[in-house]
Amino acid sequence: MKKKVSLKDIAQEAGVSTALVSYVMTNKEEKARVGREMARKIRKIAQKLNYQPNHLARSLKSGRSDTIGLIVADISNPFFGHIARTIEDEAKQHNYTVIFGSSDENVDKSGDLINALLNRQVDGLIVIPAEGSEQQIRRLKERHVPFVLMDRPFPDVDASSISINNAGAAYEAVKHLLLSGRRRVGMIAYKTGLHHIAERRSGYTQALSDYGLEKEKRIKLARYSHLRDDIRKAIDQLTGGKHPADALFFATNSLAIEGLRYISELGISVPEQLAVVSFDESEAFDLFHAPVTYIRQPIREMGKAAVRLLLEQIRDGDKPTEAICLDAELIVRQSTAKK
Amino acid sequence: MKKKVSLKDIAQEAGVSTALVSYVMTNKEEKARVGREMARKIRKIAQKLNYQPNHLARSLKSGRSDTIGLIVADISNPFFGHIARTIEDEAKQHNYTVIFGSSDENVDKSGDLINALLNRQVDGLIVIPAEGSEQQIRRLKERHVPFVLMDRPFPDVDASSISINNAGAAYEAVKHLLLSGRRRVGMIAYKTGLHHIAERRSGYTQALSDYGLEKEKRIKLARYSHLRDDIRKAIDQLTGGKHPADALFFATNSLAIEGLRYISELGISVPEQLAVVSFDESEAFDLFHAPVTYIRQPIREMGKAAVRLLLEQIRDGDKPTEAICLDAELIVRQSTAKK
Repeated sequence: MKKKVSLKDIAQEAGVSTALVSYVMTNKEEKARVGREMARKIRKIAQKLNYQPNHLARSLKSGRSDTIGLIVADISNPFFGHIARTIEDEAKQHNYTVIFGSSDENVDKSGDLINALLNRQVDGLIVIPAEGSEQQIRRLKERHVPFVLMDRPFPDVDASSISINNAGAAYEAVKHLLLSGRRRVGMIAYKTGLHHIAERRSGYTQALSDYGLEKEKRIKLARYSHLRDDIRKAIDQLTGGKHPADALFFATNSLAIEGLRYISELGISVPEQLAVVSFDESEAFDLFHAPVTYIRQPIREMGKAAVRLLLEQIRDGDKPTEAICLDAELIVRQSTAKK
Repeated sequence: MKKKVSLKDIAQEAGVSTALVSYVMTNKEEKARVGREMARKIRKIAQKLNYQPNHLARSLKSGRSDTIGLIVADISNPFFGHIARTIEDEAKQHNYTVIFGSSDENVDKSGDLINALLNRQVDGLIVIPAEGSEQQIRRLKERHVPFVLMDRPFPDVDASSISINNAGAAYEAVKHLLLSGRRRVGMIAYKTGLHHIAERRSGYTQALSDYGLEKEKRIKLARYSHLRDDIRKAIDQLTGGKHPADALFFATNSLAIEGLRYISELGISVPEQLAVVSFDESEAFDLFHAPVTYIRQPIREMGKAAVRLLLEQIRDGDKPTEAICLDAELIVRQSTAKK
């Protein structure tokens, strides 16, 4: 068998010290003020010699793997893709690698993934939990696994979490519609027990109530599993009849995109006949003929905060839990212009 | 310390055999014809008792971890998010869990991830490689790691791969534009050495040449790192001057979305002044006022084929490499309607 290549071998070939090679191979060249060209040269030599850093040995020594696990609710949704990217960028800043999995909104899969990642010695987890996974999250706590919940806190579970003020953001969106002269504002949400969606619904209800329109409440729910059909039915009901809705508030971007497809098909004009506002952003909102007013979540800040909270837990052990709630911002565009 | 919960404990509480519990806990209930209700009951009891399957022991016994690693080029791009989801769904069918990472088009990060996943005993890798990672891929081969390249094969590396006929699909798209009466067809692509983009460019060039328009070739390149600026400049150049382009072919969905934003800003009418066609699909294409003609990659088939090839390698050891090339389909919509 070929002798294993060591840092020393690389150092000799590059004509530099072993310490310097070590800095580069652990991605700490900036801290050690190693020049870019030199770092590149060292990496090239390491590659040529087929150097394999002994992560496992390193992690046994430090008791840490310098890896965090991320579980998102559905990786095919660009919102979670962006969160994943942000967490990666932020983790990279702290020399952590991120490996992740997607529960696809399925509680069994979520359990499998948590086990798969923990069995692979990640130092901690960031979880955007699937509906019904409270018990799995409680177990993480019992096992003293460092973790942070993101996007969807469980109100009954005492855990560190990053979320946004969902009720407040929904309230602002509906208030904006009412102040723009709309009176019959419908809402389409997911049929789910998840807290963040319940909060968005309550923000909608509160706004109607504050403007004396509690009787105009019209919420329709769509199932994940029957998204297209349920949204079409909901829009038919909301925009039909004697008193059709003159505005729609979608609780997520996936709901809005499916809804806008159907609204276009029906030939309903936005914003003239129907104002539209959605939670979350989407590239599709920019390309719609009347760019869609939306609630922008502070994804970058959320990612930074999640990584910070997790690393603090990893370093300091049993820290008291911390729930961070950030504000979202309403981005007003043409889809809610006054009639 | 609490005694570890065993399959037997669960079986006793459920009043069934240990074998039956084992089937359910390894997700093989269908094979064993366990009823849905019974499987649910057993899972509930397992959860209540806080049962922890001993994956590590299991993987030591079988020499396998029943986990595959997936490395995508940029998880914030919905195209890769969809691929990831498809691979997960397919892997799940075979009782495999997928953990993944994103190289973010960065060759160093790609190397870190490959090591991170291999150190965590995945049984094999599916890789959508970053530019410049040929050497890392060659090393996988030297180390006899089962792996499959996806979306972006390296022509100089002998490896199993799933790709599509990029040149052929680009050719069809440009031919469609020419047959619809367009004569000055521009193309915007990434500035990259990646083979699949070179193939798309050659399909474009070949189509122009076959229709006697080789002199009308106008390709502009945009850098990943300066996407917005480079695309704006490219569109200014292509649509300006005495003989402005009457059609644009975008080599990827990200390029097209950024391009369409600017085209809308400029007030250029699609399809009247400018026909538009793009590689890849996007929800944004559906919501554009003239739904965008695009090249649909067979993502589901690609994911299925990648998982199949990988599992064959994992089971049969050093199998001969197999390169699967699938056809893409041109979906003609309003953005390329005749003038």
